Amino acid sequence: MKLLHTADWHIGRTLNGYSLLAEQEQAFQQILQIALDEHVDGIVVAGDLYDRAVPNTDAVTALDHMFRAINIEHQLPIYAISGNHDGAKRLNYGREWLANTGFHLNTLLEEAFTPIETASTQIFLLPFFDPMDARVYYSHQGMSEDQTKAIHTINDAMQLVIADLVKLFDPQKRHLLVTHFAVTASADDELDLTSETTSKVGGLASLPASLFEAFDYVMLGHIHTRLASPMKDKIRYAGSPVKFNVKEANPKFHGKGVEIVDITADHITHTFKPITPHTDLIALKAPWKTLTDPEYYHQQPCNQAWFAITIEDFDRSQHLNVRAELQKIYGTVVELDYADTQAKPIDHPETATPGTLSPDDLVGQFFHAVTGHDLSQPQQRLVDNIFIDLSQEE
Amino acid sequence: MKLLHTADWHIGRTLNGYSLLAEQEQAFQQILQIALDEHVDGIVVAGDLYDRAVPNTDAVTALDHMFRAINIEHQLPIYAISGNHDGAKRLNYGREWLANTGFHLNTLLEEAFTPIETASTQIFLLPFFDPMDARVYYSHQGMSEDQTKAIHTINDAMQLVIADLVKLFDPQKRHLLVTHFAVTASADDELDLTSETTSKVGGLASLPASLFEAFDYVMLGHIHTRLASPMKDKIRYAGSPVKFNVKEANPKFHGKGVEIVDITADHITHTFKPITPHTDLIALKAPWKTLTDPEYYHQQPCNQAWFAITIEDFDRSQHLNVRAELQKIYGTVVELDYADTQAKPIDHPETATPGTLSPDDLVGQFFHAVTGHDLSQPQQRLVDNIFIDLSQEE
Repeated sequence: MKLLHTADWHIGRTLNGYSLLAEQEQAFQQILQIALDEHVDGIVVAGDLYDRAVPNTDAVTALDHMFRAINIEHQLPIYAISGNHDGAKRLNYGREWLANTGFHLNTLLEEAFTPIETASTQIFLLPFFDPMDARVYYSHQGMSEDQTKAIHTINDAMQLVIADLVKLFDPQKRHLLVTHFAVTASADDELDLTSETTSKVGGLASLPASLFEAFDYVMLGHIHTRLASPMKDKIRYAGSPVKFNVKEANPKFHGKGVEIVDITADHITHTFKPITPHTDLIALKAPWKTLTDPEYYHQQPCNQAWFAITIEDFDRSQHLNVRAELQKIYGTVVELDYADTQAKPIDHPETATPGTLSPDDLVGQFFHAVTGHDLSQPQQRLVDNIFIDLSQEE
Repeated sequence: MKLLHTADWHIGRTLNGYSLLAEQEQAFQQILQIALDEHVDGIVVAGDLYDRAVPNTDAVTALDHMFRAINIEHQLPIYAISGNHDGAKRLNYGREWLANTGFHLNTLLEEAFTPIETASTQIFLLPFFDPMDARVYYSHQGMSEDQTKAIHTINDAMQLVIADLVKLFDPQKRHLLVTHFAVTASADDELDLTSETTSKVGGLASLPASLFEAFDYVMLGHIHTRLASPMKDKIRYAGSPVKFNVKEANPKFHGKGVEIVDITADHITHTFKPITPHTDLIALKAPWKTLTDPEYYHQQPCNQAWFAITIEDFDRSQHLNVRAELQKIYGTVVELDYADTQAKPIDHPETATPGTLSPDDLVGQFFHAVTGHDLSQPQQRLVDNIFIDLSQEE
């Protein structure tokens, strides 16, 4: 059996306000092409299909079209779960119809206890869940209140869940697990790679890889780089197909892609297949003089990539609109920062906190902070009129 | 061919804050039972499946379970469209998978031009749309900008749409239309029956029945009572299965239900099948003395219905908490009103507008208005503490 392993699509996500949808659609087309070229038996999407529980309409339409291309046009099975970003109950809508064409989607804990059976393999689709979900599930299974109340952490819950999954093992078959958690090689490991949640924060503590040793192979979602995979040959992250934040502009995180996992009776291999970003994300850090020097910026893929720029040794007195000047050179600047916090242009000691100012005062103060001048009377009138119009639209 | 015609489920709706979900689930069970008893060939749901574009999670789960019961458990086809309350694009998710088991759901105008073909009948599923949707559709069809700009009203748009639907008619078959608009017997008719939108307001102007005369039968949604049907034998509203507002407590609107439409080569008949409300909605209007007289209220289905009560000739000086006293007698009081506005208990000339008061002042003023007394110091402390707790929870 040959599967394509991907995860963390986060359809609908934005990067500092820039929509990533076109980028995600480009990456999807490459994923589909890889699946076809490799003649896989199905595509595994290990959670975080959407970026939020109530995705916007465009995101809903985009994901529907992606699933349609895989499962209806190309009749490839899908093995998918919800992640912590998805709304589990909302995403459950229509699940039984999807299954009719081999689109297996689990979003609720109880659904994990019915593995998908192929001739050679059992595929367990265990969606993201929290300790409270496990309490409810085990209480419905007849567990006493004393026992369910002993489920405090995700580790407590996962031990019970895995034990129950193992009971379902068919010894004649391979056992695959698809799930969506932070898993580390040992319990003490810190996940300092680019993850969307810091380990141990918000109940998303990491689980030790040893918990999953009964499975022949584990396909994970949640951490956005495959470099974080806790066991090189057996428990792996696919990583997100698209770079989602500026930290990932770091060359260390280059190489987005999917994995092709080949499962036979006597071996399991995984092969990385890269995805070429449609629009790359480049981080630059240099003094203003360098950034605006043609010798420097002609070496950059100006107007073809997104840039996250950190300016060193900045002297704001000479520049009116830093972002505009840089965008004229580089194209889209998704993030702008200053290496020396002392030199940040908007760092006036007399600046009031934004929450206490009216919108037009805020604009005035921002203008002063950036330009060193107050708004002229015509400028002030223009700003006032804009806010009056805006308030009437509401 | 025999179809069950229902509409305007509005799953997720509330009545003055009271959830109608249990009521809607009860009505659904009756609809399903009628469909089974009548051995229908399918269930038509003529729009407004949900009450809003982004329904809450419980509503999504409830509707999924209803459709599952009809189409997966009982393998009955569904012919459904979106109404003005539904989010058309959002509800489109999964549509192609649903169709595999005969669950036909149209939410976009362009989908209406592929009728569902049965041996004897063409079923046209035309979802709610607005003139702008028609402009976009016809522009994609190659219509010139001048022509699309001439589409101003829903009447303009509907004339084009109907003409194009008629072109698809198979002369060997019956032609059914399912749609979701306000339709009146003649163009000048006023819809003063219980509709959720007043006719001609917000672009939802009513359409004349004559527009639809090419069809053998038209199953409508949008108006919540079948009594508003514009043509007795041919163009009919099913009405909502549940009473959604207090106006419907009026006996004139009694008789919620569905219609069984029997279509043969030489006749089409429709038969009304009633749905018994699980919890009825009763409107009472009487003086306080009558309302609280056992001889009167023992004739009411106290604690078994929801009550909308209008008090006549009210003397507030004698009563501390009107709603509580009435709820003790009647059970759930979903609406409370006073026949004589002069006598409304909260009608102090010195009352400040709510927006300008702090929450605790508002409680104090409300207490004074209802009781004629100020809060005592312990009462005031209690109120303060509640608001402190509430603000900390946020």
